[in-house]
This record gives sequence, C-alpha cells and structure tokens, in this order.
Amino acid sequence: MLVECVANFSEGRRPEVVAAIVDAARGPGVHVLDVSADSDHHRCVLTLAGEGEAVAAAAWRAVAEAVARINLTQHRGTHPRMGAADVVPFVPLGDTPMAYCVALAEALGERIAAELSVPVYLYGDAARRPSRRDLAHVRRGEFEGLAARMQKPSGVPDFGPAAPHPTAGAVAVGARPALVAFNAWLSTTDEAVADAVARAVRGSSGGLVGVKALAMNTTSHGQMQVSMNLVDFRATPLPAALEMVRREAARFGVAVTETEIVGMVPLAALLASAQYYLQAHHFSVDQVLELGLMDLASLQPAAGAGGPMP
Amino acid sequence: MLVECVANFSEGRRPEVVAAIVDAARGPGVHVLDVSADSDHHRCVLTLAGEGEAVAAAAWRAVAEAVARINLTQHRGTHPRMGAADVVPFVPLGDTPMAYCVALAEALGERIAAELSVPVYLYGDAARRPSRRDLAHVRRGEFEGLAARMQKPSGVPDFGPAAPHPTAGAVAVGARPALVAFNAWLSTTDEAVADAVARAVRGSSGGLVGVKALAMNTTSHGQMQVSMNLVDFRATPLPAALEMVRREAARFGVAVTETEIVGMVPLAALLASAQYYLQAHHFSVDQVLELGLMDLASLQPAAGAGGPMP
Repeated sequence: MLVECVANFSEGRRPEVVAAIVDAARGPGVHVLDVSADSDHHRCVLTLAGEGEAVAAAAWRAVAEAVARINLTQHRGTHPRMGAADVVPFVPLGDTPMAYCVALAEALGERIAAELSVPVYLYGDAARRPSRRDLAHVRRGEFEGLAARMQKPSGVPDFGPAAPHPTAGAVAVGARPALVAFNAWLSTTDEAVADAVARAVRGSSGGLVGVKALAMNTTSHGQMQVSMNLVDFRATPLPAALEMVRREAARFGVAVTETEIVGMVPLAALLASAQYYLQAHHFSVDQVLELGLMDLASLQPAAGAGGPMP
Repeated sequence: MLVECVANFSEGRRPEVVAAIVDAARGPGVHVLDVSADSDHHRCVLTLAGEGEAVAAAAWRAVAEAVARINLTQHRGTHPRMGAADVVPFVPLGDTPMAYCVALAEALGERIAAELSVPVYLYGDAARRPSRRDLAHVRRGEFEGLAARMQKPSGVPDFGPAAPHPTAGAVAVGARPALVAFNAWLSTTDEAVADAVARAVRGSSGGLVGVKALAMNTTSHGQMQVSMNLVDFRATPLPAALEMVRREAARFGVAVTETEIVGMVPLAALLASAQYYLQAHHFSVDQVLELGLMDLASLQPAAGAGGPMP
C-alpha cells in the first residue's frame, strides 16, 4: 500500500532543526522525495513516500523530533500554524484506498496524543466531524487561540488532552487526495482576460468543483497565467480543467500557449490524460509495459516472476 | 538496463512444447509478460522483460529448448519462418540505449552459433548489412530456401555455419524499438473512407514514416477501423498518428469514435501523449510521483533512500 505524506512543521529558519526533522524521518522503506523550508513562512514541508507503515513510522519520528525542538511560544511567521508539527496528511498513491490513509492518520493521531501529550485533530477525509474536513477551520485562531478554543465543545480534540501542549500546541493529522498544481499560460498580457478565465474555471465562483484558480501576472513569460490547484484529480481531471480554460480563453480570442505541472504528479493523473485525449476508452493500466515489471503496491518485482531481481 | 524480448518460435500446436519453451525462459529476474500461441500460424510469441542480462539468458534457454524440440522439416503454418527459434529481437525499455540491445543481440547470436551450431542473422538495429535491417528480407525463401540461399555471398550468416541446421534452420537475432499497436474506429461503415484514411496515414504510401496502417472492417463495432503499427513511437508518436487520422477522416465528415492500444505499451509513449495534449512542454518524467519511488533502471528502490525496502 503506497502512500505519500506531506508533513508540515513550524520551522523554516534554523537549518539544523530542519535537518534534524528530516534525519528523524529517514529510515528503511521511506523515500524523502522533497524538503522545502521557507524563512518568511517559518515553516518546512517534507514529502515522504513509500509503504504506508514505513511512512507512518517516519512521520511519527519527525513529529516527535519537531515537538522536542520547536517552541511555538517563540514562533512568528507569515503562515498560519497551531502546532510545532502542524499538519500531517496521508495521501493514497496508486491503488491504495483512502480508507487505508484514514486508518494511518487515526493510528498516528492516537500515538501522538498518548506518547507526546499533544492534542490531535483529525481533518480532511479522516475528519470525524464535518466541520473538521476543512483544515482552515481546524486551525482557526492558531496556536495563540488554542487554549480558549479547546474549552468549548466544538474545540475538543479527537485524541489527547483538551488543552494545548505548552510549547507544541496541537497537530492536525488527516488524509486527503493528491493535489495537482497545474498552470496555463495565455496568449495575452490582459489581466482582465485571465481573471475572467480563472473565475469561470474555479469552483468557488461557479466553475469546476475540484478546481481552485487564480490569475497571475507572470512576467517571466510576458503572458498572463491561470494558476490552478486540482484538489481531486480523479473527480476533476486535468483535461476537464484544461479544456475549460481553453474554451473560456477562446471567447476572447486567446489561446493556451503552454501549461506547467508544478512539482510531483501522480502517474494516474497523466495516464488518465493520455487516455482522454487519445480516446482510448478501454485502456487499462495493466497494458503499461514497465508497470508490468513491478508490483507498485509493494515496490517488489511482481509476484510469480521467478524470484527477486539480481 | 531494462529490456523487452519478443521471441518468436515455430510451434503453435503442441501445448506441451510451448510450455517447455516458456518454462525454459522462466528464471530469476525475468518477467514473462505474455505468451501467445496461434495454431494457424503454428507459432508462439513470448514477451519477456527485465534486466538485460537476465532477459538474454532467458532467451538463450528458450532458444536452446526450441532447437531441441522443433523439427522444421515437419512444420507447415501460414506464417513465414526460417527457424525453430525464428526471430529474437531485444527492445530497449525506459532509458536503455539501443546500443545495449544491439550488444545483447550480438552476444546471444554468437552463443547460439557456437553452442547449438545454428546459423544466426543479425537484423533490425543490430544488422551489419543494410539489407538485413528488414526482417522480411532476411527471411526471404524461408526454411525451405535456406540451403540454396546460404551458398551465395549475400546469404552468409553473421555467426555460425554457412549451412542451415538440419532441423532448426537459422535464427534472426536483432534489436528494434518497441512497437505500439494502435487502432482507431471511424464513425462510418464506408470501407472506401477507411481505405483513404489508412492510405494517407501510412508511410509506404506517402504518409507518416513510422506508421503502418490498414483499413479493417470490424463488425463487432459496426464501424470501420484504421489499424496501425507505430514502429518507432519516439520518432512518430501516438498523437501524430491520431491527429492525422482525425484530419483525414474529417475530410469525409467522419470522426474518430474510439481508439484501442493493443497489448503492452511503453510508459514513455503514454507520458509523451499526455505531455503533447496537455501542452506541458517542459514536463519531466522526474515529476511522476510513483516513479520517484523506484529506480526503473534497476527495479530497486531509488538510491539514497535510506536502505532497502522491508
């Protein structure tokens, strides 16, 4: 069961602390795909992937390290946060079911509360209250507002004490689909056109449910950009977003000149795009040669293949 | 270095002989992705894949088994053939260079000649004479014409005796790019339209260099089909073929209703299709999440990832 974990910690200024958290995460079966630290945000994000149990163990080690090293009473940054370990979502990869990621989140949350005495909120697909699906809602008031908030019935955590950890606050542990960051450049410098396209496409203003979109003035290209997040690429796939951008831009005689997939993208999002545009309605992922050589779920050569690779 | 080997043997009627050849091929590091036997053709095709050395060793064992069990003097089938082991091409997968597959073909050819006394012709990208790039040319005259042909200078094999093996004939060993079999159904029952589209698209009649195409009357769909082979999907990619089919069909007011990718397809062909249609001109395969988890070239977890998977 392959999963990704995009763990957010409230440390972006002391490189030795970021390194200690990353070192804690490393271990057998865990791939550290990315580490990014931002000094203004005072925050770092680790992208971990591998087998679920190994990734959950790595997330646990990183959270424990962050709780030991970060003191939120001393922390000021531009990014909202409520904990030393702030947000820990598990993301299913390949055929892994979301329920498996929810179970990982629940187990990690229980352990954090039990062994570190840090209160835990379950969010996203792991939420036990509808209001907690939304991370922004869970984190409202941030670290400084946590003590007051936790005394109300609506603020009782899912695991652990009904009071913040004195230096580490609280942590949101959850499960969510993989995000795809997808930008489209338009053959125009007219910000009004890009605004109109972004507004038509994004879900919050009547467009596609799974799309967040903003017009961006990207001077490096000398063109306007529609910057999108696809929050559930299975429900709202890349071609659905791109075709809508193309159509809305065409109203103004504007074309898409290029797109950009930012950072990591699940293979399934790309295979679904190829299948859509090739009209290969009955295509199966089993037909992909290289994938037949390995069992993605276990990272081992496929079963029945005559033994391990030399 | 991942490779595929699509080995063709002149046995499609005795299941126990096909099974013996397949069993001989199996071994550590070899994935038997497909076995197909055809009674009319009196021929079977094994699709093997894995690390080059392991696949070459598997091909060697299968060839030796076929040479021991098949007597071409008793063999009649509809498919042209000149050997018990008839054609053994190595196909590069992933980033494997063609030169590596040529080297595998040369080493296997030498061994077949030395240990089995079967003459070997190198063909495709492994050909040492331009005329031998084309398999049909190498196999002209088939098993029955081999003895006469081999006495001419043009018929001298690349390895082994200048006379056919008495029961196993000769074998063509080579290297070639992966084939993609790709069919497009048209919104018409008019065979003349499908013929015109196929003729416009296929290289031999002035169309795309890397495309073979035929009009097929596919009654199961109640529609005409353009059946294509893309012989070098890097030079002539899937979108190039499909867009040309669409354009030529549109001349007749006909649309593509669906396409079919037949059998196995290299991942690169699909990723290139997604990149083309999404206009993601600067996309890199390094951005694919699942591929970051493993080193496709070795089928081992990526280096520097903290140790082997449990």
